[in-house]
Amino acid sequence: MQSADSVSPVDLVRHLFAARSIAIVGASSNGLKAAGRTLRYLVMHGFQGEIYPVNPSRDEVQGLRCHAALSELPVVPELAVVVVQASEVAPAIAECGELGVPVVIVFASGFAETGPEGAALQDEVAAVARRYGVRVLGPNCNGVIGAADGVTATFMTGIDDESLVLRDDGIAFVTQSGAMGAFILTEAQTSGIGLGRFVSTGNEMDISLAEVVEGLVQDDATKVVLGYVEGVRTPQRLRQALATARANGVPVCLMKVGRSRAGAAAAASHTGALAGADAVFDGLLAQYGAVRAHDVDHLLDLGRVFGLSARPKGGRLTVITLSGGAGVLMADAIEDHGLSLAPWDRAWAERMAAVLPAFASVRNPIDVTGALVTDPELLRKALDVAIEHPDTDIITVLVGNMQRQEDQVCEIVESAAARTDRPIVTVWVGGTGRAVPRLARAGLVGFTEPVRAIRALSSLVRFWAPAESTPTTSAADPHDEPVPTPGRVVDEVEVKRLLAAHGVPVVAEDEVTTAEEAAATAARLGFPSVVKILSTEVAHKSDLGLVQVGLVDADQVRAAADRILAAAERHDVTDRRLVVQPMISSDTELILGMRRDPVFGPVVVLGIGGVLTEIAADVQVRLPPLTSDDAHAMMNRLRYAELLDGPRGRVAVDRDALAAAVVSFSELVARETADLESLEINPLLIDDSGRPVAVDALLVRSSSAVGGRGDFR
Amino acid sequence: MQSADSVSPVDLVRHLFAARSIAIVGASSNGLKAAGRTLRYLVMHGFQGEIYPVNPSRDEVQGLRCHAALSELPVVPELAVVVVQASEVAPAIAECGELGVPVVIVFASGFAETGPEGAALQDEVAAVARRYGVRVLGPNCNGVIGAADGVTATFMTGIDDESLVLRDDGIAFVTQSGAMGAFILTEAQTSGIGLGRFVSTGNEMDISLAEVVEGLVQDDATKVVLGYVEGVRTPQRLRQALATARANGVPVCLMKVGRSRAGAAAAASHTGALAGADAVFDGLLAQYGAVRAHDVDHLLDLGRVFGLSARPKGGRLTVITLSGGAGVLMADAIEDHGLSLAPWDRAWAERMAAVLPAFASVRNPIDVTGALVTDPELLRKALDVAIEHPDTDIITVLVGNMQRQEDQVCEIVESAAARTDRPIVTVWVGGTGRAVPRLARAGLVGFTEPVRAIRALSSLVRFWAPAESTPTTSAADPHDEPVPTPGRVVDEVEVKRLLAAHGVPVVAEDEVTTAEEAAATAARLGFPSVVKILSTEVAHKSDLGLVQVGLVDADQVRAAADRILAAAERHDVTDRRLVVQPMISSDTELILGMRRDPVFGPVVVLGIGGVLTEIAADVQVRLPPLTSDDAHAMMNRLRYAELLDGPRGRVAVDRDALAAAVVSFSELVARETADLESLEINPLLIDDSGRPVAVDALLVRSSSAVGGRGDFR
Repeated sequence: MQSADSVSPVDLVRHLFAARSIAIVGASSNGLKAAGRTLRYLVMHGFQGEIYPVNPSRDEVQGLRCHAALSELPVVPELAVVVVQASEVAPAIAECGELGVPVVIVFASGFAETGPEGAALQDEVAAVARRYGVRVLGPNCNGVIGAADGVTATFMTGIDDESLVLRDDGIAFVTQSGAMGAFILTEAQTSGIGLGRFVSTGNEMDISLAEVVEGLVQDDATKVVLGYVEGVRTPQRLRQALATARANGVPVCLMKVGRSRAGAAAAASHTGALAGADAVFDGLLAQYGAVRAHDVDHLLDLGRVFGLSARPKGGRLTVITLSGGAGVLMADAIEDHGLSLAPWDRAWAERMAAVLPAFASVRNPIDVTGALVTDPELLRKALDVAIEHPDTDIITVLVGNMQRQEDQVCEIVESAAARTDRPIVTVWVGGTGRAVPRLARAGLVGFTEPVRAIRALSSLVRFWAPAESTPTTSAADPHDEPVPTPGRVVDEVEVKRLLAAHGVPVVAEDEVTTAEEAAATAARLGFPSVVKILSTEVAHKSDLGLVQVGLVDADQVRAAADRILAAAERHDVTDRRLVVQPMISSDTELILGMRRDPVFGPVVVLGIGGVLTEIAADVQVRLPPLTSDDAHAMMNRLRYAELLDGPRGRVAVDRDALAAAVVSFSELVARETADLESLEINPLLIDDSGRPVAVDALLVRSSSAVGGRGDFR
Repeated sequence: MQSADSVSPVDLVRHLFAARSIAIVGASSNGLKAAGRTLRYLVMHGFQGEIYPVNPSRDEVQGLRCHAALSELPVVPELAVVVVQASEVAPAIAECGELGVPVVIVFASGFAETGPEGAALQDEVAAVARRYGVRVLGPNCNGVIGAADGVTATFMTGIDDESLVLRDDGIAFVTQSGAMGAFILTEAQTSGIGLGRFVSTGNEMDISLAEVVEGLVQDDATKVVLGYVEGVRTPQRLRQALATARANGVPVCLMKVGRSRAGAAAAASHTGALAGADAVFDGLLAQYGAVRAHDVDHLLDLGRVFGLSARPKGGRLTVITLSGGAGVLMADAIEDHGLSLAPWDRAWAERMAAVLPAFASVRNPIDVTGALVTDPELLRKALDVAIEHPDTDIITVLVGNMQRQEDQVCEIVESAAARTDRPIVTVWVGGTGRAVPRLARAGLVGFTEPVRAIRALSSLVRFWAPAESTPTTSAADPHDEPVPTPGRVVDEVEVKRLLAAHGVPVVAEDEVTTAEEAAATAARLGFPSVVKILSTEVAHKSDLGLVQVGLVDADQVRAAADRILAAAERHDVTDRRLVVQPMISSDTELILGMRRDPVFGPVVVLGIGGVLTEIAADVQVRLPPLTSDDAHAMMNRLRYAELLDGPRGRVAVDRDALAAAVVSFSELVARETADLESLEINPLLIDDSGRPVAVDALLVRSSSAVGGRGDFR
């Protein structure tokens, strides 16, 4: 693969979306054919730079002078679009390399996506590109659109429309699926959503979705980056891109498919990419403040609200509506999505009442009533008051039908929006359907469905005013848990020694070999006691009766130890040691673990323990290393975070102490990564003082890793 | 209020939607004014019956002969539309009554929705209607549309369009919100959804949403009834309507607003109707197999899929797509919504492979690839195989863009649908937007968003093939719990005696007054024991240290009893008896209770107990009496139903025994209803044999109810 050194992500984005000279290698005279469309589209959509068709068999293509070879061009083009078939791609790239063309787009399919033979061909192409330091988008991709500069380096038929003016509202879109990407682009552009920069990354032989995102979020023209993700081929790069996005305050909204078991199976057969556990992807997004889109509508809705110039300072909405019933619906949606209705106190309600009919409702939701239909100016008056109201962060206008008043209402909303720095979002149900595109052309956002509007706004609020937001829930599906790879089991005393060495609090305990020693140790550590088998041969000791709890004196400990040793012998356990612990009195069980994700590598998991572990799968996943803020965010985002607050007389969790333990654990994970397959503290108990104590732990090293540390067999 | 006797729901529906003669009382010559629109719309939309404008000041209205009074009409019209203002409504209804007009629609506002004065006027109108036995829709309503008969008894501007041909695909829509109803109707009709019968019920002075639903579901022309609900004014009637719908196999899909705290507050100020607990509404729908719509899009989507003539026999979908990425997305959505991908075995995959290009993927999702764009006939071939495939219940076609092949693809889908009795649903992303309306005109369903399609199909499958469906989760919000009304507390021994008398299993226990008696009773019932205070003065005994558990011998019981009696005395409890029980060893705690809903009255609640009660609020609510099937459905629909199956070595619940207890409990509730405020078994423990045992119970009778049964003071 190409190293990223030759062209930085920022330069890459400039070359792709704003090239001033473009060569089309293999350009066809037939503008309807795939090989002829790129040239035709560049002309149709007003590309102002130089276009160089290259084709040895023609002097002229679609009215432009054609050169026989790249070497004959008068300049080195900033971008080459290679429209030849698979077998001719390698020589074409070599030709680009000879000339010094920095970036090349390859449309042809017939590479890795078709099987081993195609993969070999793709490797050949990659080698050529690497040799010349040429960066390649594709193969098997749909190309690029940069609407602001008229760059339409694509063969997609979705933009084959003279009347379509490609808008750019600062919304960029990177897709791994060519077809879905094309559909979404067309849907956006035909409905007035200025999704102005589009990249289809195809087989990602060289340039990955993550790299394009990284370049886009460093570009001032980017208000939001949308992505359609099938599989993450460059996880570290994606993490880096999301970190850069967060640092630059650019929202990244990703829709990822292949989440479910069925979807992952379909994805594997489609792209050959590993899906990875979906909870990990969720955790990564949460970790860097990126937004997850749940469906295509949602993705575009996120693009629209993040494309707004106005940014909300909080999550308090004022709803102005002509229908009481619609106001109720909006109030439901607002509460469901963790936002709130802005409070309108008496003085402000009276100001609103002064401009509205007597029968209007002037508490939020503000119901102007059907009087709005006969007198749309009422909306202007209501908006004038609302944009002054100090406790309103976002104004939503809900109207419907009013076919005859459409232009007037749109003009009123547009003029109000020009007078405030708060977002004004319109929901228009029914009607002619022309209001939403009209508002979009004016840089405003309109929806046709109230709940969709609120869903999108809740993400907008959470991104720009996180303090206002309510934690969302996010949980792994039980079947997302990676299957443990067989490997070497390390005994629990050793594991806890390792944990303690890294600052994770563990229970006081000692290893003994006889019942007599057990009794003495228990007396020293304090009753009631727990005695368990200690053996590298036994992973699930409870199931075999090899754990005894609640032992109140030395006699009980001695008897229990004898029973355990005898039972272990019966089960043919040869490594038969014992561990003695004081019993921790605890209301709350947690789990804290590390797993190895097939895509992202080691991840840290914090979750609710006990019976809920399997049933509710209430866990949060993050990529190490973690900060204390990360650890607190993990706690807050647990579905049953409330359990940590000590309900029903339970002991509340000392969140700082737990955060410190999580951070220490993540540091251990980061250091021990090489051959660590999994590491799980289960349970991590919360003691009487609210602090976490690791009581049992299981570590599996990968069997392939030989040796290991001296103190850690 | 009008009794329903004069006109049955079935006749009512006939009068509203299919009247053959309509009088318009107060008809205006100005067809643009509200009072003139109904007549103009009837002509515009091709009403074939007789229209009788009535207005004393005119001989002719909009080209039709006008009568001065109803009494001058040559016939008694089947329906009268009263378009006069509020103050003139009562005399107009009297006039209708004199003539014997059976059903009247009143548009005028200015009644109960405006305050006490309006409410008084409404009562007057109601009294007049009652006197004459006239049934009234409204006031303050938008009227009725019956598209099949050209009945447009409405003044809504949303249908003011010469070019709009009102379709009727068997989809009926009843709305309590006039404005939202109007918007939704327009959105449906302009996008080709044949929402052919529309009723706005307004203030529901007489005719309620429930009554109209009851009539609609008995009409063979009704494929599905949609409803927009703000508040249930006639709960028993709604229950009756849903029961009739289930008996007749007609799906009813309701969207209810005012679910959240904020929404309920907004609804109360808007309609004055009580919201009731949302979990109860959910439970009612689940009980009768009705479907809950979550947003406006969802409501219309449900209308569309239930409007299909083809009914699925199961939930196995075959996906035919031109995009591998879209196939992955569909697979995710299918799993998320509890459906499955139809299995395509080798033989059938080979049949499919035989008609597709070599690079197509012939396992489901079937990826025809972009080859479909150049050769749309591939879709016909793939559909031909899929409609023969025995394990496919529903076929979904996912395409996008293909602006040039749109008509051809639509024709292929239409022709395949004509050759099979299985639903074929198309998802068309991007493109011109004209494919979905075209398919709708052909009686087929198209979506523009893949996840929305699957969400709607999952309801369709659950309705027609319930055995295939996966239980959905449904949980109450904690703040939906009704606040307990202060009332008379009955002691737990009495309550359990009542429960036992009705067949609910309760723990063995005895009431004693001294520590000595307690020890003797414990010995008789068996150790370990539980001793608790028994007093009508103490509701939350655990909090006061008045419960002692795990007592292993007579000495411990005696000592515990003394401690409890002493503590009770310290807390100034004068009714100081004790109850002694054997301690039930149990892994699983449930709650089983009765609450009084402000709208629906007594409801039965089954939920997960213990700490999860408050945090997860995992409960199912139903209206008594319950059948055994209802009880099983409640268990299955619990979010954590899995807890009942005995995970992690726990004892599995004997579901039949639990169902029997729930049914017995519901019978008790039905019998004891009059003054029962609440009754809660908490915990209902699952014992070693998996059977439920009521261990503690609390009953509150309403304080207003005096006296009560002899054995139950």
